[in-house]
Amino acid sequence: MEPIEALDARYARVRDATMALCATLTPEDTVAQSMPDASPAKWHLAHTTWFFEKFVLCRDPGYAPMHADWHYLFNSYYQSAGPMHARPQRGLITRPSLLEVVDFRRHVDACMRERLQAGVDEDTAAIVVIGLHHEQQHQELLLTDIKHLFACNPLLPAYAELPEPPRGRARPQRFLRGREGLVETGAPAHGFAYDNERPRHRELLHPHAIAQRPVSNAEFIEFIRDGGYRTPTLWMSEGWDTVQREGWNRPLYWSEDLDSAFTLGGLRALDPHAPVAHVSYFEADAFARWAGARLPTEAEWEVLAADRDPGQGNLRDRGLLQPCAAPDDADEDAPLQLFGDVWEWTSSPYVSYPGFRPLPGTLGEYNGKFMCGQWVLRGGSCVTPGDHIRASYRNFFYPASRWQFSGIRLGRDA
Amino acid sequence: MEPIEALDARYARVRDATMALCATLTPEDTVAQSMPDASPAKWHLAHTTWFFEKFVLCRDPGYAPMHADWHYLFNSYYQSAGPMHARPQRGLITRPSLLEVVDFRRHVDACMRERLQAGVDEDTAAIVVIGLHHEQQHQELLLTDIKHLFACNPLLPAYAELPEPPRGRARPQRFLRGREGLVETGAPAHGFAYDNERPRHRELLHPHAIAQRPVSNAEFIEFIRDGGYRTPTLWMSEGWDTVQREGWNRPLYWSEDLDSAFTLGGLRALDPHAPVAHVSYFEADAFARWAGARLPTEAEWEVLAADRDPGQGNLRDRGLLQPCAAPDDADEDAPLQLFGDVWEWTSSPYVSYPGFRPLPGTLGEYNGKFMCGQWVLRGGSCVTPGDHIRASYRNFFYPASRWQFSGIRLGRDA
Amino acid sequence: MEPIEALDARYARVRDATMALCATLTPEDTVAQSMPDASPAKWHLAHTTWFFEKFVLCRDPGYAPMHADWHYLFNSYYQSAGPMHARPQRGLITRPSLLEVVDFRRHVDACMRERLQAGVDEDTAAIVVIGLHHEQQHQELLLTDIKHLFACNPLLPAYAELPEPPRGRARPQRFLRGREGLVETGAPAHGFAYDNERPRHRELLHPHAIAQRPVSNAEFIEFIRDGGYRTPTLWMSEGWDTVQREGWNRPLYWSEDLDSAFTLGGLRALDPHAPVAHVSYFEADAFARWAGARLPTEAEWEVLAADRDPGQGNLRDRGLLQPCAAPDDADEDAPLQLFGDVWEWTSSPYVSYPGFRPLPGTLGEYNGKFMCGQWVLRGGSCVTPGDHIRASYRNFFYPASRWQFSGIRLGRDA
Amino acid sequence: MEPIEALDARYARVRDATMALCATLTPEDTVAQSMPDASPAKWHLAHTTWFFEKFVLCRDPGYAPMHADWHYLFNSYYQSAGPMHARPQRGLITRPSLLEVVDFRRHVDACMRERLQAGVDEDTAAIVVIGLHHEQQHQELLLTDIKHLFACNPLLPAYAELPEPPRGRARPQRFLRGREGLVETGAPAHGFAYDNERPRHRELLHPHAIAQRPVSNAEFIEFIRDGGYRTPTLWMSEGWDTVQREGWNRPLYWSEDLDSAFTLGGLRALDPHAPVAHVSYFEADAFARWAGARLPTEAEWEVLAADRDPGQGNLRDRGLLQPCAAPDDADEDAPLQLFGDVWEWTSSPYVSYPGFRPLPGTLGEYNGKFMCGQWVLRGGSCVTPGDHIRASYRNFFYPASRWQFSGIRLGRDA
Ligand SMILES: [Fe+3]
Ligand SMILES: [Fe+3]
Ligand SMILES: [Fe+3]
Ligand SMILES: [Fe+3]
Repeated sequence: MEPIEALDARYARVRDATMALCATLTPEDTVAQSMPDASPAKWHLAHTTWFFEKFVLCRDPGYAPMHADWHYLFNSYYQSAGPMHARPQRGLITRPSLLEVVDFRRHVDACMRERLQAGVDEDTAAIVVIGLHHEQQHQELLLTDIKHLFACNPLLPAYAELPEPPRGRARPQRFLRGREGLVETGAPAHGFAYDNERPRHRELLHPHAIAQRPVSNAEFIEFIRDGGYRTPTLWMSEGWDTVQREGWNRPLYWSEDLDSAFTLGGLRALDPHAPVAHVSYFEADAFARWAGARLPTEAEWEVLAADRDPGQGNLRDRGLLQPCAAPDDADEDAPLQLFGDVWEWTSSPYVSYPGFRPLPGTLGEYNGKFMCGQWVLRGGSCVTPGDHIRASYRNFFYPASRWQFSGIRLGRDA
Repeated sequence: MEPIEALDARYARVRDATMALCATLTPEDTVAQSMPDASPAKWHLAHTTWFFEKFVLCRDPGYAPMHADWHYLFNSYYQSAGPMHARPQRGLITRPSLLEVVDFRRHVDACMRERLQAGVDEDTAAIVVIGLHHEQQHQELLLTDIKHLFACNPLLPAYAELPEPPRGRARPQRFLRGREGLVETGAPAHGFAYDNERPRHRELLHPHAIAQRPVSNAEFIEFIRDGGYRTPTLWMSEGWDTVQREGWNRPLYWSEDLDSAFTLGGLRALDPHAPVAHVSYFEADAFARWAGARLPTEAEWEVLAADRDPGQGNLRDRGLLQPCAAPDDADEDAPLQLFGDVWEWTSSPYVSYPGFRPLPGTLGEYNGKFMCGQWVLRGGSCVTPGDHIRASYRNFFYPASRWQFSGIRLGRDA
Repeated sequence: MEPIEALDARYARVRDATMALCATLTPEDTVAQSMPDASPAKWHLAHTTWFFEKFVLCRDPGYAPMHADWHYLFNSYYQSAGPMHARPQRGLITRPSLLEVVDFRRHVDACMRERLQAGVDEDTAAIVVIGLHHEQQHQELLLTDIKHLFACNPLLPAYAELPEPPRGRARPQRFLRGREGLVETGAPAHGFAYDNERPRHRELLHPHAIAQRPVSNAEFIEFIRDGGYRTPTLWMSEGWDTVQREGWNRPLYWSEDLDSAFTLGGLRALDPHAPVAHVSYFEADAFARWAGARLPTEAEWEVLAADRDPGQGNLRDRGLLQPCAAPDDADEDAPLQLFGDVWEWTSSPYVSYPGFRPLPGTLGEYNGKFMCGQWVLRGGSCVTPGDHIRASYRNFFYPASRWQFSGIRLGRDA
Repeated sequence: MEPIEALDARYARVRDATMALCATLTPEDTVAQSMPDASPAKWHLAHTTWFFEKFVLCRDPGYAPMHADWHYLFNSYYQSAGPMHARPQRGLITRPSLLEVVDFRRHVDACMRERLQAGVDEDTAAIVVIGLHHEQQHQELLLTDIKHLFACNPLLPAYAELPEPPRGRARPQRFLRGREGLVETGAPAHGFAYDNERPRHRELLHPHAIAQRPVSNAEFIEFIRDGGYRTPTLWMSEGWDTVQREGWNRPLYWSEDLDSAFTLGGLRALDPHAPVAHVSYFEADAFARWAGARLPTEAEWEVLAADRDPGQGNLRDRGLLQPCAAPDDADEDAPLQLFGDVWEWTSSPYVSYPGFRPLPGTLGEYNGKFMCGQWVLRGGSCVTPGDHIRASYRNFFYPASRWQFSGIRLGRDA
């Protein structure tokens, strides 16, 4: 566990970052929920604060919750922490107002600071660290949820004035041979990781290769022009049903003419060299089939990424908030853009590792109960906080989800 | 038509009243939509303004709309005025912000003032008058929609600090014999009325009587305790389906113990003497059957109300925003509370009068196209603006609607 | 009440007619339910029999129901007669088999014959008469439900080999001036009529005219070609929603090229002179608006039809089971095709007459509880039994219903 | 590939078995579809025949399909074989009648016999073999679909008069240590297997143990009585949502008092010693968590079953059509009931094996496109044909499916 000093400072840094993300939002922007999967920004602000009040401050029996009746509103899904408001109704919670929620944050932050400065035991420190990672996850969601909300507005407002991303060239695609045989994956026993990354365990890798870089917009346009969205045999059965039912014919946020896309900076020309984003697992899988390839497994991905530095990626800290092509000066044989830009769909259903043990108590509900029907994504995206990603990190979404910055890296048998 | 002077002042008064209704709301409160039937307060503010910009200011070809791209957002249902945003998505329009909408109001109000002070032709004046009545309708909806929204919030916030309504006693119920034979109903050709109140025409009234006052909460509790909600033979077939599907067992906003109800002033004890409110046509009709009575027809109601003064009712101007029992000092034989307190469901489906002509042009869509599947209510409610009700006024809602201040007055054959 | 002898014979005739309608059906055809509004033929056979067992035979406390456990299955909607199977599940009741149901019919018929021959009291006789009218209503439904079912089958099987209907010419349309002022409508106190046709009462008719004949297919095609289905201002708001949601662009059962239509005799060329059928109220109303007319009220219709002979119409007994143009030899000023061919939508919502009293007991549920949200149709159709129609007969369906032989007769103010 | 002679005989045997399963059904029983997941028996009869006509007979360009227009009706999901009728509408296809479908079977069988007796090439023979396995799969579905249909009928008809199953005693539960390390699973390259069982490949097994026998009804009742269905922390998040939404509180087909269950032989007392059946993955997984165990992976299961004889199981050929306890005389350390009784949910999502290649052509749609969102079950059930199961056989269903004979075998880490 990290030293208490650091924890205090880190707490402040992470919490402040969340507030900073809201700087360009009006109070109105923070209250609306554009679909059941997304949450209002105000809800994110309150829920992440509830997490600290409920799981840290309330450990002290002397602590009186600031607003006990808010716990019902801002508990997300922790059944063992008490009943909760129905998720699809989050957009109707106009009260507490944004100001009241900000006050709540201040109050909890003050209590937390005091607590952290007084020194906390190891268990508590561990929960604080989880709470900060939790907060960072919600930071990413806050951005993707706002993007979705703004895309529902015919005025297409920009979240912020963003710099134009550098317009590099996507290299010609290559496949890099992966390691095979018995390997180890998962997070080591020490250091922070979510319970779903553990235990570190042996995996058997079959001979395979992985693409050097993610699929680009230009390549995805080829798939579209080749009739990809009209060819049922390229698709999972359920994917094809979704294509038909939803009328999908391009990635989410793209204009009909395939020339531009809605971004956090507003509507912008589509960069053919940038990695394609906002595709579902169904689209990633169909694209791979069309390309004569497949998606990599999560173990193949992790082994490839294991000794790369996540910090080099186009993550949120770079401030682009949009995927872009990798710079051209990289090592010819190195995998590119494993971290940042887009989360990469893998061919692995999200299930537990052998020997998986959920966290004890309520936090055991954090991850384990979602191990059904979702697929693993790896590597973080352009809106992932820079210190929130690692090779063993497992993100997961339903196969029809498209509102995350989710993209495609190909793999194949070798 | 009214003199231009008066129109100017009246315009200012009505428009200001709308803003005044929002004084206690946060920006967040104004953006959320709690169900497809309801609209956000911000949307009401913008839509009523769009009405004047579109139907009055834009008559001048030299007028440039302040925000041409907002017309799509704030057109409600006028197909001939252009395409419009889907009604159930109104809660996602966080931009324009409340401040921008208020600016829009100011801008349009300034232009309107100028226009009205310069003098307008009769046609224009007529549209302005319609626009003001339209605005007043939305004032009522703004309140009922906010009430619904706040009732969806587990914190049950109050819209405003409201005075306790006077706690009068409901008189013992009596039935007053109505006029019979050929009568005239509908608005006269001159003076303001909606197109659906015209033409004035002959109706044949059969022998009947009408209750002196609306059904009280105490009487409705009797119905509940007698198993009213569990007795299918009291209900229209579709009403019974609704009872089953929705699990109805009391009026909207009542607490389960039948002791209190959510009001615009927050949760309050239920006054047994006050008229029951927030019941659907289905409930009104079932109650009437249980009571061995029926609902009055709209013609019966109108003839009874024709020479009464609407201004005496518990309308919005009284500031209670809640129904209450009539004062005890009234004439023994006079009908009570015809105006104000609660809209009274009639047994009349909402259809056109013989010889009905919709307004010319786009405003022809105001009323006529809704004459299907809805039922007429009469008399206004405790949130109806004082000068917005008259004996010939026809309100209409679907038979399952309960979020309006809708109540019951009994009738019977005689 | 009719003499017992006649009742006996009439019972046999009506009951046999139902069986005769099933002669061309396979057992499989009799079990399927193509939508919640329709019922399987086998269900019709059993339900009409249940009606006699439950409401006539079971009046004798000594009578033991043949299959007491079938009552749950074949009660349609009589809440006071006990619980019932959910309507949309009728197609899953493969047992009892068709043969068992036919046996049930035989058993009940034998008991009924014995009972009728022994002589029944007046009350019982009245219920038997209702039961026979009820059976005839179901005969019509059986045919419209089978038509709907077969139209859902890509093989488009014919119900029967039917004669080609005579191909007359539709006369040029004319409007006939109607009676005005105070009139009487509704069924007289004596003779059979449903409770909803009573009491006979005074109505006030405003000056009006009614079209001599129903709208023809050719005229409806004009409406289509003129963009009728693409012009929102022609439609009720709810009708337009339905058009959009369902993708309506022509009457039910018509081929896309407007050249042919599915009939009980299979797919056939569309006769431009025949009355248009299988249109909803929404379409009838939109057509009327397009034509600068309106639909007649039910009172206007009834007064016009009051002294015409229903038996002249193209009713089921003629065996065409399809609407066709009227013969050319009719009186120039006489209204044509009031009875038979197509049920004619009126502008009257289906509500009770002044002074309406439902039948006592369970049969009070027959009609009254459906007086909400439906519209009155008049005159019977080409599948209505010849002795089952009269001027005062009120049929009723929801405004979006199209699977009945429902058509359009225009009216207008005069 | 098997010799042509045998194929001829085998074809006859398998095809006749399908017909034999329908002996107790009325024509009405064969037409109804009780839910989108299930199909009518008549559809099964026709679809399996279509399979041979389309994929075998039509390979001969000289062959004229008996009913070319039936291909649309009886293609299930092979997009590359042409368009198809919507799955949820299968119950409306009353024509062709059962007799016509039986005729179709006879015709195709005669052609097939001729073809097989004349001798077919290896490719054709391979497709015939697939067609026979396909037919056997549909035999199982025919029984589970009929069971579901009959359970929807309040009369609860029995599919057949079935013998009472032997009432053995379930042994005290034990866990058997499994093999660990590198193993091989999947079907060998030769002999029949579906494409999804291949290629045979290496898997890494972690230390584990597997229960000797499936979970019994008595054990599942314990789970219920202990509040299993009311304890959210036992469930996958989506499973808990399903429990709430569907009101699940016991396995499908059980009576509310947990004393009896609907079987193909009608309603019968529940045998506490028999394996629990008709539970979903969600229930299997929750039960395992409650029991402090987990479900085995499919590889763990397959390795355990690899050298067992499927023929000893309670499969369809035994004629019980109901799970029952294993006989008591078995080897103390041998796993019991791996084959037959109930399909056993595993913890393995249904995905492709490393190096998976779908069959070429249209039959490539047989399995691969369903590898999303489903879970693997192993071992066959009491309605699986005796020669249709093997250790490598992978069945798969959605996690909420309960209408198959699906049960639970526990596993755990060791
Ligand atoms: Fe969270
Ligand atoms: Fe409006
Ligand atoms: Fe009936
Ligand atoms: Fe199949």
